[in-house]
Order: sequence, then C-alpha cells, then structure tokens
Amino acid sequence: MPVNEIKLELLTPEAFAPFGDIIDAAGSPDMMINEGRCGRFHDLARLDFGDEPSRAGISIFRSEACTLPYVFNLMERHPLGSQAFIPMSADPFLVIVAPDDAGVPGIPRAFLTKPLQGVNLLRGTWHGVLTPLVDDAVFAVVDRIGGGGNLEEYRLTENYVIVE
Amino acid sequence: MPVNEIKLELLTPEAFAPFGDIIDAAGSPDMMINEGRCGRFHDLARLDFGDEPSRAGISIFRSEACTLPYVFNLMERHPLGSQAFIPMSADPFLVIVAPDDAGVPGIPRAFLTKPLQGVNLLRGTWHGVLTPLVDDAVFAVVDRIGGGGNLEEYRLTENYVIVE
Repeated sequence: MPVNEIKLELLTPEAFAPFGDIIDAAGSPDMMINEGRCGRFHDLARLDFGDEPSRAGISIFRSEACTLPYVFNLMERHPLGSQAFIPMSADPFLVIVAPDDAGVPGIPRAFLTKPLQGVNLLRGTWHGVLTPLVDDAVFAVVDRIGGGGNLEEYRLTENYVIVE
Repeated sequence: MPVNEIKLELLTPEAFAPFGDIIDAAGSPDMMINEGRCGRFHDLARLDFGDEPSRAGISIFRSEACTLPYVFNLMERHPLGSQAFIPMSADPFLVIVAPDDAGVPGIPRAFLTKPLQGVNLLRGTWHGVLTPLVDDAVFAVVDRIGGGGNLEEYRLTENYVIVE
C-alpha cells in the first residue's frame, strides 16, 4: 500500500476556516467581566446540533497518544452536528481533517495546535480520530446528543503518514 | 464589616449536585471509540439554554488569579442559562457557589477542583467570579448566547474569606 506524506501545518484561522474554528484567546477580549479581572472572547465556534430533540452536550474524551511519524487511514465525520475539542491540559495535539470529495475524504491535512487552543469541527467535516501527543490526554467535547446515525467512517485506500 | 471564614471543600459529585455538575473522567468510560484508543464519558452536564432563539456557545475566559486567603463579597447568577467552565490547563481553580435564599445568595461554599476537572453551573446558581489560582488562566466556557438579562449581580452585606 502506498504511503503518502503529510507535513504538519501551523493551525491558523485562515487555513482552518473551511474545516472549523480555533477556540483560543487570540487578539483582544470582546468584553471585560468580573470587575475587570477577566476577558471574555465571545462565541468563538460555529456550533450546529440540528433540530430538536437533538441538543448540545459536554462529554469527556480520554485518549491514548500518537507519535510522529503517525500513520493512519481512517477518517470519520458527523453528518448531524458539529464537534468541539477542548484540551484540559496545555499539551498540543494534532488535528487531522480533509475536504469532502464527492462524499469521501479528499487529501487529508494535519494541523498542530498550540497550548490553550481548542478546535470546533463543522458539521460533516471529515476528520481523523483524536490524536494527542501525550498519553491519557483529556478533552472536553461539545457535540450533539440525540438519536440517528451521526457517525460515518471511511477507510482510505492509501495510508497517510504525518511528519513534522 | 464582619468577615466570615469559609473553608475550602473537596469537590465531590454529592456535595456539588445542588449547584451543578463536575465534568471529568471519573469511573469507567461509557463507551470506547476510535478503534479502542479513546474512552468517552458521555453527556456529563445538565446544560440548559432556554428556548430558541437562545443557543449554546463556546467562549474563552482569560482571568487574573486569586490567592488564598481570598476575600470577596460579590456573587452573580445567570437566570436564563447554565454555564460550564472547562480549564484549558491542568491547574486547579476555586468554585464559589451559594444556595438561593429567597432570591439572594445564602452562605457561600468554596470547592477546589483537581487537575482535569471542569464544572457546569446550573441555570440560576449563585456563584462567585472566576477564581483560578494561576494568572492568565484560560477556560472554555459553554453558556447561553442570546438576548435578555442573563446577569444578576448581588453584593453581599458581609465579606467572606476563603481559607485552606
């Protein structure tokens, strides 16, 4: 099976916009609260949980780590809702996404977060499984709670390997 | 002005239940995902954003730290929605809450989180301002986005001091 190399990219709002949102304290706060002690960076993610009775929920994902070079061929997407990943430690993690290509994943891209950054994946965005770089990494995940088929997995016909 | 001492309590689900939810990876995962690499602890918070057009949003709060002993007399609550605080580093923080006493805060209680714990405050729960123990602490906050008066502040007639 051929192996295609993917170079890690820096996570920037421009590069990531087609796939989702970066959740971080970039720039100046939208407002100061708590008697001036705290800055609020307001409403940073394009959340989308479809129609009721589906709703937003907060879950915890605790994941094994991956190491670079990281080989993968599994992608997935959630057709019914967005999914946000908030790391609960300051360790960076990999965000693997792909554009849609007529219903299957196109060529994947891999982004490396900085400390204190989370991401929100838009509804239907192809993405890799959670790939922290330290073991037992803990993330708060804001995604859709509700019935229906909200997981679509796709096994790529070629392996990809993410390198620094 | 009299000063009333409040001793820090350990954050346990039983003690905290009247005020909200602990968001952490306690016990066993509800399901294994990502080919067995990741445990999902499912739907841990009683989110409540009222009726549409209000909705869930994710914001970032970046706050100054407090130090113990910590003196305060300001409480607030959000009558229209729940509010969850997800720390984005592994540093513990204080969670100050109070029962409602005929429309004003009763005697406050103060809980200390452990690393990798967030909390969700139930709609209408009296609470103190965000009180991390390290400066420039960053939290992802899941709360209600929408119009209307969702902030009620109350200045206590006595000071309280939180001690270890």
